[in-house]
Amino acid sequence: MMNKAVGKVIKRLREERGLSQEQLGFETKLHRTYISQLERGLKSPTLNTLATITKVLNISMTEFMKLVENENN
Amino acid sequence: MMNKAVGKVIKRLREERGLSQEQLGFETKLHRTYISQLERGLKSPTLNTLATITKVLNISMTEFMKLVENENN
Repeated sequence: MMNKAVGKVIKRLREERGLSQEQLGFETKLHRTYISQLERGLKSPTLNTLATITKVLNISMTEFMKLVENENN
Repeated sequence: MMNKAVGKVIKRLREERGLSQEQLGFETKLHRTYISQLERGLKSPTLNTLATITKVLNISMTEFMKLVENENN
């Protein structure tokens, strides 16, 4: 399922960068609880929101979607 | 801007497939006016919505994002 895979990839990249949910929330101006919901696959972000997150995580949207689609396979 | 590029790419792919906004709306179960708003860059779709659209347009999310990022460059 798309949301689960998106959440897993956000969480993995966040941890690889050594960021807490709180720090990612601060950098993206999104609430920590929203970050948590995304990571658990409970929400589907808009592309705008995802663009903000991938910018902070320093990955292109294309590379991000590649990771999500690999997760789904 | 992300939404503009997303809209352009949806419109281009839809037209390449010979679909009207109405037909794409029917296939995706989205309202034709919402398709129109997306194509004009007035809305940012959620990833779930985009996944539904790209499925009907027969393109992977990764390939879709590549087109969007090329549009932005």
